[in-house]
Amino acid sequence: MTQREGGGADPESTPAGTKEDLERYGRFRVPRRHEPLRPDLQLYDSLQGQKPGSRYLRITPTSQQELRKMAPAYLQATSVLLRPRTLPGQIWTRLRRIFLGSPLATSQAINERLNKVRALAIFSADAISSTAYATEEILLVLVLAGTGALNVSLPIAAVIATLIVVVAFSYRQTVRAYPSGGGSYTVARENLGTIPGLTAASALMIDYVLTVAVSTSAGIAAITSAAPGLYDERVILAVAAVWFIVVVNLRGLREAGSIFAVPTYLFILMFGAMLAIGFARYAFNPALTYSPPENMEMTAATSSLTIFLVLRAFSSGCSALTGLEAIANGVPAFKPPESRNAATTMAWMAGILTVFFVGLTVLAHLFNVVPVEKVTVLSEVAQTVFGKTPPYYILQVATMLILIMACNTSFAGFPRLASVMAREGFLPRHMTFRGDRLAFSAGIVLLGILSTGLILYFRADTTSLIPLYAVGVFLSFTLSQSGMVVHWLRSRESGWKRSMVINGIGAFGTAIVVLVAASTKFTHGAWMVLVAIPVLIMLCLAIGRHYRRVEEQLALREGDLTPLEQVAVDSGPQTVVVPVDGINRAVLRTIEYALTLSPNVTAVYITDDLEQAESLRAEWEEKLPHTPIVIVESPYRALVAPFLAYIDALDRANPRGRITVVLPEFVTRYPWGRFLHNQPSSSLKRALRSRPNTAIVDVLYHLR
Amino acid sequence: MTQREGGGADPESTPAGTKEDLERYGRFRVPRRHEPLRPDLQLYDSLQGQKPGSRYLRITPTSQQELRKMAPAYLQATSVLLRPRTLPGQIWTRLRRIFLGSPLATSQAINERLNKVRALAIFSADAISSTAYATEEILLVLVLAGTGALNVSLPIAAVIATLIVVVAFSYRQTVRAYPSGGGSYTVARENLGTIPGLTAASALMIDYVLTVAVSTSAGIAAITSAAPGLYDERVILAVAAVWFIVVVNLRGLREAGSIFAVPTYLFILMFGAMLAIGFARYAFNPALTYSPPENMEMTAATSSLTIFLVLRAFSSGCSALTGLEAIANGVPAFKPPESRNAATTMAWMAGILTVFFVGLTVLAHLFNVVPVEKVTVLSEVAQTVFGKTPPYYILQVATMLILIMACNTSFAGFPRLASVMAREGFLPRHMTFRGDRLAFSAGIVLLGILSTGLILYFRADTTSLIPLYAVGVFLSFTLSQSGMVVHWLRSRESGWKRSMVINGIGAFGTAIVVLVAASTKFTHGAWMVLVAIPVLIMLCLAIGRHYRRVEEQLALREGDLTPLEQVAVDSGPQTVVVPVDGINRAVLRTIEYALTLSPNVTAVYITDDLEQAESLRAEWEEKLPHTPIVIVESPYRALVAPFLAYIDALDRANPRGRITVVLPEFVTRYPWGRFLHNQPSSSLKRALRSRPNTAIVDVLYHLR
Repeated sequence: MTQREGGGADPESTPAGTKEDLERYGRFRVPRRHEPLRPDLQLYDSLQGQKPGSRYLRITPTSQQELRKMAPAYLQATSVLLRPRTLPGQIWTRLRRIFLGSPLATSQAINERLNKVRALAIFSADAISSTAYATEEILLVLVLAGTGALNVSLPIAAVIATLIVVVAFSYRQTVRAYPSGGGSYTVARENLGTIPGLTAASALMIDYVLTVAVSTSAGIAAITSAAPGLYDERVILAVAAVWFIVVVNLRGLREAGSIFAVPTYLFILMFGAMLAIGFARYAFNPALTYSPPENMEMTAATSSLTIFLVLRAFSSGCSALTGLEAIANGVPAFKPPESRNAATTMAWMAGILTVFFVGLTVLAHLFNVVPVEKVTVLSEVAQTVFGKTPPYYILQVATMLILIMACNTSFAGFPRLASVMAREGFLPRHMTFRGDRLAFSAGIVLLGILSTGLILYFRADTTSLIPLYAVGVFLSFTLSQSGMVVHWLRSRESGWKRSMVINGIGAFGTAIVVLVAASTKFTHGAWMVLVAIPVLIMLCLAIGRHYRRVEEQLALREGDLTPLEQVAVDSGPQTVVVPVDGINRAVLRTIEYALTLSPNVTAVYITDDLEQAESLRAEWEEKLPHTPIVIVESPYRALVAPFLAYIDALDRANPRGRITVVLPEFVTRYPWGRFLHNQPSSSLKRALRSRPNTAIVDVLYHLR
Repeated sequence: MTQREGGGADPESTPAGTKEDLERYGRFRVPRRHEPLRPDLQLYDSLQGQKPGSRYLRITPTSQQELRKMAPAYLQATSVLLRPRTLPGQIWTRLRRIFLGSPLATSQAINERLNKVRALAIFSADAISSTAYATEEILLVLVLAGTGALNVSLPIAAVIATLIVVVAFSYRQTVRAYPSGGGSYTVARENLGTIPGLTAASALMIDYVLTVAVSTSAGIAAITSAAPGLYDERVILAVAAVWFIVVVNLRGLREAGSIFAVPTYLFILMFGAMLAIGFARYAFNPALTYSPPENMEMTAATSSLTIFLVLRAFSSGCSALTGLEAIANGVPAFKPPESRNAATTMAWMAGILTVFFVGLTVLAHLFNVVPVEKVTVLSEVAQTVFGKTPPYYILQVATMLILIMACNTSFAGFPRLASVMAREGFLPRHMTFRGDRLAFSAGIVLLGILSTGLILYFRADTTSLIPLYAVGVFLSFTLSQSGMVVHWLRSRESGWKRSMVINGIGAFGTAIVVLVAASTKFTHGAWMVLVAIPVLIMLCLAIGRHYRRVEEQLALREGDLTPLEQVAVDSGPQTVVVPVDGINRAVLRTIEYALTLSPNVTAVYITDDLEQAESLRAEWEEKLPHTPIVIVESPYRALVAPFLAYIDALDRANPRGRITVVLPEFVTRYPWGRFLHNQPSSSLKRALRSRPNTAIVDVLYHLR
């Protein structure tokens, strides 16, 4: 390596470069009049000798190590670059750091493995937290047929408990078959095809949005049950909770993991204690009942106990199953042996969920709890068990925390699903970008916006949101389980028959729930989901078609690669056209710039004042004799249309050539300065965008 | 002339051109490797022989005569160009034609000369129409001191009548001295300096806006007096009237002239008849009084008759003088001898105005008219004279028409003043543009928007608007008359002493009115004007400074003109940098394009995935060996900052060179397609805009 001082400032210096560079680029000699300066080589030239022997060379002392040379023609940007140069930029960056943390490099992405205890906390928040509202939603439907009908809650709970076991068993099969993560979308798309896959994905996305809205609303309801004074602020509290979760997730999931464990285990502890003490107290004192506050109004019976009502109560209760699939998506996050650990955790989760859900329903029955407005059923039962003592308040807070943390499952799942779909071309590419902290920012923010919309629309009322809920969840269950049936049929691994039967039962059971839920809750809001799913599918298909078509158009074909010599001959020097508005420094600079692009430059002056044009022509031919000027008279004062017509005429005269339009553009120091310069460039640019074979060059003239 | 068939499609053909062309351009041989194709010559080449001998040659049969060749290097755009190519464009154009008429060529601008009869109609609408509200505004102030105080209206009217005569005489001097139009801005700026000129201009602009708001409101009040059912719709009616006038003015003033004459003369006829019949009836029956409808509420006396109140009544009545200056601005529109005709018309206008104003005030006094809400004083007097007969209704309609037509004076004056100020650099340049119909569209629309704002804010209530009114008008009177005093002092033409005395009296009289109006109406709204005027002045000065600074920066200086050979040597071939995102047809096309600009092209690939980068490099070096590629690793996934850092490094390596960044950009067929392509180009472009010595090239790739 020659030890030269950081030169290269002289454009005439030989672009020798290092030995490796020469080896690398020696063969790329371009047969042109000007020997190419090859900026990258020159750049390396100027890098030489500053820190001899160092692998990381500074480009120049003033560069603040923005770029490091790692190898020939390979630079690395450093975090210095992230420092903003303007004051507003600095404030913005500082705020981002405070709320979101310092940016992480892509290489810092760590796939943290979880043991079963932490995994249970992380993955089960969504599923277990649904015990906070599932029982209540059953009772709220049954009470329409009078308080006597509430007894039916017991058989309904039994059926739902069976369903939980069936679905959990089903998903254990999925966990075994997809150790790399078997979300409904993946399973359905791989085994059933694109449309079922997109159906599952749409259902899941809707479900994720609803989970956030329902969980936050129910979490806030837990608090307002204990502190009724906050009832009127529930919408604002729910929205604030959503955006708190958004910020936590934009920081990245690493911290979220630890935050998670506390509320989940606190909830499990307090809920378990409530069940144990509740049953114990009831055993000693069977007369124990809930005594509602006197000013509470009961819902009046408006219906008789029809099969339809029972089915509606059942499908409302099925919201208990939401979140069961979370573990199946997250198998790779477990410590090895991943599948077995995941299956074990799944069993634990399903067990806790079943016990809690059935236990609460039975206790509510034993205590003659009747659903009332503004107080949740869980709060009523807990009050009966604990009275208004600290344990009651701790349980309410734990309920709120686990419900709000349950959103996190959606905030992890939605952006991940969106990024997978975007990678396959069914959603906009932005969804695949990772933000400063490696989170899929676009998906997180989108989920925040959508769920905020739902919360605002439904005034943070869980009961209004529930009818929309179950259809999506169970549709994705059904598609996923059906996909598994096909999977076993195809793979015929050992034990495939048993697995197929289990998944078959799961698919069948969840399919029935889909039908029941869609029919009984259709008019209560399920129709929105049944409309939204096909709309989403069609949107995804349209996006997919668009990307596929673009890809086809951009794919290289035979003969696309022209040898360099051919390039020059084929297109010849550019035909360069410069619209001018007189002779001044900006115009001069633009013309000079244009002449460095091509010897073939014409200035065009469009005017409605011929006298002025003639005097301009005289001045032009005196001062810029090397560049012809064409006067286009535009009697109707149009500017864009005559210019386009001129370009069209050029095009017809030389259809094989390409036309470059060089536009002088003023950049004013302050943004308001723009209003003072009626820049034709923006309207010209817009008009030129639709022309093929035309390139647009902005030569910026910076005004002080 | 050689008779060749329309060739020129072959870029290799010699760009011979016609004999004249060669004469014209023969000396511009550029010493370059490629002989320039000289597109304009080539264009003419392809024009040859199509219609031999014709002065107007068609460019090609498909060009639909968009451009005509008038002389070498001189084309003319035809009206064919104005035909839009898209359906929405066609609809829009059709609508414009219906409402605004066909576009006019600049050469079609005709300065139509007016005889005295039409000039009186056009210029006096504003002044004469103010009789419709001036008397009422006096009475409305006086009645605050009880109905007894209304007697004071007679001496006030006498003083105002004197003032009218003084101002009219003053302006006759201006007409004589400024046959090319002596608006207050021109007179004050020429004789007193920039700041007084801008003061007069600001006052005038505010006055124009107020005239539109006041006249429309008063016109609608004339109608709602006769048809009280429309009272609640007055705001909407007033706004509709304003935009009707906007459309009429965008069509151009030619038609407006004829529309004008009818209402003005109808009003003069009906008003004159009312005065004559009114005085005659009173002479025969002195007991004749106005009997208000029973449900009308009188304003209760809340004040005693102080000097202050009388002065306030006086300054409200001074609104009668608004519009008096119109003829002075429009002298060049008169038939010759312009000045004498204008002076005569001025005398007529002042005479009619004085007689009408004094006559109405006296009749109102004789009939014991008391101002009431919802009915104008003019309407009360007219009812007393005519009863509710057709003449009464005709008068009311004529009043409305002349008032609404009075706006037209503002709609002619405001845009003209704005264009003059814009030409001198005190307002944005857009104000100088003439629209399709040669009207100053920007100013017309701006006036429409501002006056609509006032009407909405003041709920179309004339009485609330009046306090803002007089200050601006009289301030511009004072500055104009003072300017005339200086003018006579400087010019010392024959009779300058007499003229100076007249203008001095005018300046003194109107200055007193400014002081009286500003002090008595300060709290009623005049303060807004006193705040707005200096703000406007400062804005104009700031705009002026900006344009002056830009002009200085753009002015050619010694040594700016570099000989062509020098241009090439100085800057050398461009350093061209192309950010790429892979190898596809769009990238290929961009690289090929870049190679036609300069042999010195480098591709830059910014990534956070080094494996992918290495495989891209391998593919690149195989497929595009002629163009080096630089990999910039961006571990924090930033795109713009590393690219800028790379450009900065290039810049430091070769500070004298210019850098051209070529950006591939996708143009999708439908606008929504944009959302699917996260184009880095827009954010890159924004960042590059602030770099000096950088040009940005968009190579558009059109997706089907």
